[in-house]
Amino acid sequence: MAPIKKLKVGCAGLGRMGQRHANNFLNNTSRGTKIAWAKESLEPYGVTLYMDYDEMLNHEGLEAVVLATVTAVHAEQAIKAIASDKHVLSEKPPSTSDEISQQVVDAATKKPHLKVMCGFSRRFDASYGDAKAKIDAGVIGKPIIFHGQTGDKRDPSGFFVQYAKFSGGIFFDCTIHDIDLALWFFGEDNVVKSIYATGVTAIEPGLRQHNDCDNAVGIMEFYSGQIAYFYVTRMMAAGQEDQTFIAGTDGKLTVNQDPAINLVQIHDNSGIRRQIPQNYFERFSEAFTCEANQLTAAVLDDLPTPLNPQGAVHAVKIARALQESMNTGQKIMYDEYEQRIN
Amino acid sequence: MAPIKKLKVGCAGLGRMGQRHANNFLNNTSRGTKIAWAKESLEPYGVTLYMDYDEMLNHEGLEAVVLATVTAVHAEQAIKAIASDKHVLSEKPPSTSDEISQQVVDAATKKPHLKVMCGFSRRFDASYGDAKAKIDAGVIGKPIIFHGQTGDKRDPSGFFVQYAKFSGGIFFDCTIHDIDLALWFFGEDNVVKSIYATGVTAIEPGLRQHNDCDNAVGIMEFYSGQIAYFYVTRMMAAGQEDQTFIAGTDGKLTVNQDPAINLVQIHDNSGIRRQIPQNYFERFSEAFTCEANQLTAAVLDDLPTPLNPQGAVHAVKIARALQESMNTGQKIMYDEYEQRIN
Amino acid sequence: MAPIKKLKVGCAGLGRMGQRHANNFLNNTSRGTKIAWAKESLEPYGVTLYMDYDEMLNHEGLEAVVLATVTAVHAEQAIKAIASDKHVLSEKPPSTSDEISQQVVDAATKKPHLKVMCGFSRRFDASYGDAKAKIDAGVIGKPIIFHGQTGDKRDPSGFFVQYAKFSGGIFFDCTIHDIDLALWFFGEDNVVKSIYATGVTAIEPGLRQHNDCDNAVGIMEFYSGQIAYFYVTRMMAAGQEDQTFIAGTDGKLTVNQDPAINLVQIHDNSGIRRQIPQNYFERFSEAFTCEANQLTAAVLDDLPTPLNPQGAVHAVKIARALQESMNTGQKIMYDEYEQRIN
Amino acid sequence: MAPIKKLKVGCAGLGRMGQRHANNFLNNTSRGTKIAWAKESLEPYGVTLYMDYDEMLNHEGLEAVVLATVTAVHAEQAIKAIASDKHVLSEKPPSTSDEISQQVVDAATKKPHLKVMCGFSRRFDASYGDAKAKIDAGVIGKPIIFHGQTGDKRDPSGFFVQYAKFSGGIFFDCTIHDIDLALWFFGEDNVVKSIYATGVTAIEPGLRQHNDCDNAVGIMEFYSGQIAYFYVTRMMAAGQEDQTFIAGTDGKLTVNQDPAINLVQIHDNSGIRRQIPQNYFERFSEAFTCEANQLTAAVLDDLPTPLNPQGAVHAVKIARALQESMNTGQKIMYDEYEQRIN
Repeated sequence: MAPIKKLKVGCAGLGRMGQRHANNFLNNTSRGTKIAWAKESLEPYGVTLYMDYDEMLNHEGLEAVVLATVTAVHAEQAIKAIASDKHVLSEKPPSTSDEISQQVVDAATKKPHLKVMCGFSRRFDASYGDAKAKIDAGVIGKPIIFHGQTGDKRDPSGFFVQYAKFSGGIFFDCTIHDIDLALWFFGEDNVVKSIYATGVTAIEPGLRQHNDCDNAVGIMEFYSGQIAYFYVTRMMAAGQEDQTFIAGTDGKLTVNQDPAINLVQIHDNSGIRRQIPQNYFERFSEAFTCEANQLTAAVLDDLPTPLNPQGAVHAVKIARALQESMNTGQKIMYDEYEQRIN
Repeated sequence: MAPIKKLKVGCAGLGRMGQRHANNFLNNTSRGTKIAWAKESLEPYGVTLYMDYDEMLNHEGLEAVVLATVTAVHAEQAIKAIASDKHVLSEKPPSTSDEISQQVVDAATKKPHLKVMCGFSRRFDASYGDAKAKIDAGVIGKPIIFHGQTGDKRDPSGFFVQYAKFSGGIFFDCTIHDIDLALWFFGEDNVVKSIYATGVTAIEPGLRQHNDCDNAVGIMEFYSGQIAYFYVTRMMAAGQEDQTFIAGTDGKLTVNQDPAINLVQIHDNSGIRRQIPQNYFERFSEAFTCEANQLTAAVLDDLPTPLNPQGAVHAVKIARALQESMNTGQKIMYDEYEQRIN
Repeated sequence: MAPIKKLKVGCAGLGRMGQRHANNFLNNTSRGTKIAWAKESLEPYGVTLYMDYDEMLNHEGLEAVVLATVTAVHAEQAIKAIASDKHVLSEKPPSTSDEISQQVVDAATKKPHLKVMCGFSRRFDASYGDAKAKIDAGVIGKPIIFHGQTGDKRDPSGFFVQYAKFSGGIFFDCTIHDIDLALWFFGEDNVVKSIYATGVTAIEPGLRQHNDCDNAVGIMEFYSGQIAYFYVTRMMAAGQEDQTFIAGTDGKLTVNQDPAINLVQIHDNSGIRRQIPQNYFERFSEAFTCEANQLTAAVLDDLPTPLNPQGAVHAVKIARALQESMNTGQKIMYDEYEQRIN
Repeated sequence: MAPIKKLKVGCAGLGRMGQRHANNFLNNTSRGTKIAWAKESLEPYGVTLYMDYDEMLNHEGLEAVVLATVTAVHAEQAIKAIASDKHVLSEKPPSTSDEISQQVVDAATKKPHLKVMCGFSRRFDASYGDAKAKIDAGVIGKPIIFHGQTGDKRDPSGFFVQYAKFSGGIFFDCTIHDIDLALWFFGEDNVVKSIYATGVTAIEPGLRQHNDCDNAVGIMEFYSGQIAYFYVTRMMAAGQEDQTFIAGTDGKLTVNQDPAINLVQIHDNSGIRRQIPQNYFERFSEAFTCEANQLTAAVLDDLPTPLNPQGAVHAVKIARALQESMNTGQKIMYDEYEQRIN
C-alpha cells in the first residue's frame, strides 16, 4: 500500500482569511479570540501554533506556507518563506507596491522548484473557469469589453474604515480580483494604454482620511483595442454582489448575473425572492478549497503552479494606478511598453 | 378617403370581467356602484346603458355582444344573441353543463356568418402563442406531458366562497383555461381516456358547502398517449401564478416559469426580488385587448373565428368531470369515442 | 353625447422611427419604398401625405407634429412648428449641438400653451417608471451609482456606419437615453463635475471616419457625489440588451437584468434559454404607445408636458462631451455652475 | 496530540452509485472495467478489494458499509451487515418490497448502537435543507401542496430499459426521492389516504415489458388535508431537471425552479441560455459528500442517525402503490391507520 501523500502547511495569520484558509471557519475576531479559536479548533487535530512567523518557518518538515496576514507583511513573509525553501500561497495582493511585489517574484524565479502563488481565488471558481474555457474555445469571438463589479454587503460597524488603513484602498482590496480576471480573459500579455477612475464616499465618509472611497468606477484601455471597466462598492444591501460580463465580437458571457445563495425561491406577499451570499467567502468557499487542492497537487506531483506570479505584479500595478487616478482625478497613460507617460 | 370601419358592440354584465371588457377598468363592485361607474365612464363617450339584456339586443345597428355576465346566463344570452343575428364573444365557460354548451354551438352552427367565440383569453397571450408556434414547428418533438397551474392570489375577503355559488367550481372557473391550452397544444381532436382529481379546502372551509375546494390537482389521460395534469389554487401569497409547461420527446417549453410584473428587480436586505401580477387581469391585460381586436377583425373582414366554439364544449365536459371526480373521489373513464364508461 | 376628442397630428419623416411613430409598422426601407408604404398603409385611413414639411404644417386644422426625421433637421423643424403654433413631439436628440437644442427650448418657452417634448421613450416604459417611483419613495435610499447599458444587436449590413454620418455618434444615438435616465433618477438639477469616455471599433472599423466607435464606456461625475457610468455597444449577439442599475445607500434596483422577449423558456440540448427583443422597438413598443397617449392627453386636456424640454438640452450637452472625450482621450471638467473648465 | 478519528468503511457495489460513493468518480461501466477502475483508483490508496460481500464484512476493523449494489440485494446485505455489527448506509430504496424493507428496520431496531440509514441524498442538499428550515420556521404557514418532479436526461442508449428490470420501476428509482421529501416537509407521521398514478411510454416502448413507463404522474392524498403530486420522466432534453415546490397557506417555496450548472449565462444568437446539470450526480454531488460526512460524524461522535430508517419503509410502500396504480389504473385507498382498503 502506497501511503497517501500529504502536505505539511504553515498558515501565517489567523484573521478573516487566515481562519478561512485554516479550516473554512467563518469569523472575524480580535487577536485573543483568534488564539482561543486556534487552541480549540486546530491544536486538537495536531496543528502546532506559533506566535512568531520565523519559528513557524523552522517547524520540522514544513513544506509550504499560506500567508493570510495583513497585506503589509505579505511580501516580507513570502520572501522569507522562499529563502527557507517553502512553497507559498499568499493572499492577494502580494503588496500595494509593484516594486515590492516584483521582489517576491524575483525571489521565486530564482527557485523554480518552489510553487509560489498569489491567491486570486476567482480563478478557481467553477463559473469563472467555465467562462474562461468558453472564451478560449471562441464561444464569444474576440473578447472586447470586460465589466467587473465587486460588491461587498454594507457593514455599518465601521470595519471597512479600519480596514482601509492597511488595505491599500478599495481597488487593491476588491477590484484586484476583477483586474486579474480581465487580464486572464483578455490575455496576460496585454499592454495597458490608460487608466482612469473616480469614486465617492456615500456611506463611510471616514474613508477619505485613508484616501479611500466606498463606491468607485474605473476604466482601463489596452493597446489591443480592448477595454475593462470596473465598479466596486461597499454598499450592497442584499449581500455580496460580484458580477462580471465579457462582451465579445460574437457573443457575451455573464457570471453571477443573478446572485443566489442556493436554489430556493420564496414566494410571499413581497413578491418572489432569493437570498444571496452575505460575503466573499459564502460566494467563493468552494473556490478556496479548489485553490488549496490545486496548489497541494502542484507541490506533491510537481505540476506547474496554477497561476504565474508575474501576473500578480501586473494586477498590483493596475490597482495602484486606479487608486491614484481616483484620488488625483487624472487619467494615467502608458506607452506601448507600458511605461508610464504622465 | 375610406372611412375607418368600426364595430358596434353591446356588453352584457358590468361585473369583474364586464368592466374589463368594457374598458379595462379594474374594479369589483356592487351593482349600484357598477351602474354609477358606467354612467361616469361610459355614457359620456356615447355608450348607451340598458338595464335589460333584450332591450340591449334591440339597440339600433348593434352588431355584436360581449357576455361578461355570470356563467349561469351565458348560454341563454348567447342563444338569444345568435337568434337576433349578433356576433358573440362569451366569457368562459359557456355553461357548466356540456349539454347546454352544446346548444350554443348548435345555434351558432346554423348561422355560419356569425362569429361566435368563447373567451379563452390565454390563446391571445403572446407567450402562449409563441409556445403554440414552437410546438407546431416541432421544437419539442411530440408533446407528451402538459402541466397547467392556475394560481389566484389569496383573497381573505370571502369573495371566492360567494363566487363558488355560481361559478361551477374551481375547475370551471380557473382550470378551464389550462384544459383549453392542453387541447390546443396536444391537438383538439384528442380523445380523453380518463379523468381523476382531488382537492382540499386549506384556507376557505366555506367552499365545501358549494362542493368546491381551494386547492386541487387533476390528471387527464388521452388515448393518444399524452397526459395533462393540473394544479389549481386560491392560495398564492405573491399574486397571480399561472404557470405552464409542455414536455415533448425532444424538448420542453415553460410559460411564466418566473412570474414578474415588469423588468424591475429590487435588491434589499431580504435578498433580490421581483413583484408579480396581482390578478388574472394584470397578467393577461394585453391578451384581452388582442382577443377583442381579433374578434373585431374577424367580424369586419369576415375572417375565420379565432377559436372553434366546439372546443369550449369539450373543455366544459372535462372541467365538469374534474369537478365531479374531485367531489366523488372516483376516476372517470371514457371509451375511444369519449363516451363515459363509469 | 360628448364627441370623443381626437388630436390631428402631422408626422415628419417616414424612416425607422417615423414609420413606427406613424403606426408601429416595423421596417427600414429606402425612400421610394417609404412612400409606397405610406400610400398603402396610411392614405386609405384618411391620412394626407406631403412631400414638403412646410406644406404639412399648413394642413387645415393640424394641431401637432411628430418629428421622426434625421437628427440634423429636428431643431429647424421644431422651431418652424412652434412658430406655426403646433405642439411638438421630437425624436431624440433635438440636435447634436446644445446651442441649437437650446434655441428649440427658447422658442417653446415663449409659447407656454404649446406642449413641446423630446421623445425620451424610456420615461414611458412601465419598468423605468416603476424604478423611478421606487427611488422617489426611498426604496433604495439616496441613489449613488447609475449604470446604463444600451446594446444594439450586431448588424452586419453596414447600416450603423451609414447612420453614423448623421447621428452625431453612438453617445448621441444611444447613450442619450441613459443620460436622460441618470438625470431623471438622480435629480434634473444635478450639476456635472466631469466627463470621461473611451471607445473602440471592434466590428465596424468604418465608424472611425465618422469619429465614432462601436463599443464605448463613459463616466460622469456630479457635484452631488453621484456617479453615472455607461456602456454602449453595437455588438450584442442575442438582440437588444438595454440594462440599467441604480445603487443607492439602502438598496439597488435593476431594470432588464434578464432580457426576454416573452415568458417562454426553451429547454433543449443546448440548455435552457429565452429569446430576447431584437431591436429597440421590440423592447419599447409599449413605451412608444404610452408616450403618444400621454402627449395627446397633455394637449387635449391641457396637462403639463410630460417632460421638461430643458432636460433634453442638458442630455445633449452631456452626450456631446462624452463623444468628444471618447475622441480626444481628455477628461472634460466643469465648475459648479457647469461651465466648462478645460 | 489527539489523533484524527477516521471511519473504516466497506463499499459494496462498484456500479454507478458505488463508484460515486467510493470517490465521486463519475462513470458507468461494465464489471470488468469496474474492477480495473478500482485497482487503479482505490487500491493504491490502501483500499482492499473484495469479490465477495461476506469476505468484505470480515475485513479486520471494518466499522461500516455503504450499499451501492442493485436494489434487489440491498436488504439482504443490510441485514448481514447489521448482524455483523456494522453501521450501514444503503442506497435507496432499501427494497422494492415494504415487508422486506421493514425487516431491515427491525434488524436495525434491535441494535440501537448502530447507525443504519437509507441514502435519501436530497435531505443533505443545501437547498432542500433550507426549504425544510423555512417550512419549520413557518415561512409559508401550513404546507398544503407538494409537487416533485424528477427528470432524467433522455438517454438514447437503452440504459433505462435495462435498468428497469431491477429497479422496481420509475417511481422506485426516481420518485422515491420526491416521496421522501413530501413526507419530510409535511411531517413523517402523516397518514396516506389514497394514491393514484398513470404513465406513458413516449420514448422507450421497451419499458412496458418491465411494467414501467418513461413519463408518469401520480397523486397522493393525506388524511391531514395535504396533497403531494409527482411528475417523473426520462425525457428531459437539457439535462437533469429535479424541481420541487411546496405551497403553504401563507407562501410558497420552490427548489431548483431555474436549473443551472453554474453561474454562467451565454448570450448568443439563440438568445440567453444557461447549461444545466446532466445527471443526478452533477446536481447532487455536494449532497453526497454531506451525506457521507454526516453519517461519519454520527458514527464517530455517536450522534443520532440523520434519517429515521422507518421513513424509508414508508416511502417504499408509497412508491410500490404508485407503481401498481400506474399499471392497473386503479386508485388505491387506505384507512386512517394506513391499512389498504381496496
